[in-house]
Amino acid sequence: MRVLGIDPGIAIAGFGFIDKAGHKLTPVQYGAITTEAHTPQEERLVQIYESASALMDRYKPDAVAVEKLFFNRNVTTAFAVGQARGVIILAAAQRGLPVAEYTPLQVKQSVVGYGKAEKRQVQEMVKMFLKLSAIPKPDDVADALAVAICHAHSAVMTQKINEVKRT
Amino acid sequence: MRVLGIDPGIAIAGFGFIDKAGHKLTPVQYGAITTEAHTPQEERLVQIYESASALMDRYKPDAVAVEKLFFNRNVTTAFAVGQARGVIILAAAQRGLPVAEYTPLQVKQSVVGYGKAEKRQVQEMVKMFLKLSAIPKPDDVADALAVAICHAHSAVMTQKINEVKRT
Repeated sequence: MRVLGIDPGIAIAGFGFIDKAGHKLTPVQYGAITTEAHTPQEERLVQIYESASALMDRYKPDAVAVEKLFFNRNVTTAFAVGQARGVIILAAAQRGLPVAEYTPLQVKQSVVGYGKAEKRQVQEMVKMFLKLSAIPKPDDVADALAVAICHAHSAVMTQKINEVKRT
Repeated sequence: MRVLGIDPGIAIAGFGFIDKAGHKLTPVQYGAITTEAHTPQEERLVQIYESASALMDRYKPDAVAVEKLFFNRNVTTAFAVGQARGVIILAAAQRGLPVAEYTPLQVKQSVVGYGKAEKRQVQEMVKMFLKLSAIPKPDDVADALAVAICHAHSAVMTQKINEVKRT
């Protein structure tokens, strides 16, 4: 199963494709979609939508996982991130891909095993799980990979539960 | 010039197309795009995107005006509205339509002439400007027409300023 994890944003949206075979996770491709600050927001949304669409068409994920944000920053920021999120989820839905959402707490619990883990701990675990030589930069990329790992773990769990149910 | 005004939302997005000829405003079509509460959010976003796209293709506006929201409700609501807004703005940008944003204050000032006007006063002025027999329902539709009128007024202003500059 291939999972695309996304950390949405208007200036920078981190993405990470990982493959899950059994319990083994392999990074496929990761990076960031960036848009320029002086570009009108509508053009930035088109750029994000087109980049996300192109990535999905190229790497053909089976599922998309997005962080569900509840930060305390201002509502204007929430709108901007929401808009970026909207066009990315649209691109996924247009391809019939299931979209899963995880709170930061769920991501931390799944990746580190501790819901109040520090950002750095999450990043170290991302590096370890995917056998990377360094923590991916910027943070948005590591965050995207973390949510992808969270979904992969959650899928393993679901599978286990189903196996238990069948026995 | 034909203006499409939008009051974005995930459950209901009001829309209103109006024509401006000189100072005369004429309603062309107005209503609401609605989605069902139990539908997954990704499907709702696709529905909103497709409905907005179809409306733009059918009524061919020259510009799109959207209310810029700064309400004090929770960040989760802002995310949901932001996502709906994102896919509508994407549909506009993909058609090369300019997207203008107005704050509720700007809309009230433009439609009623008073930034602290009550919702009801705005609705009465919408009815009057567009010579409607009744206030359009639900409120989202009247709000969409109000932001369209605001843009039409603002376009008249811009034209006047340009005329003064040319003389």
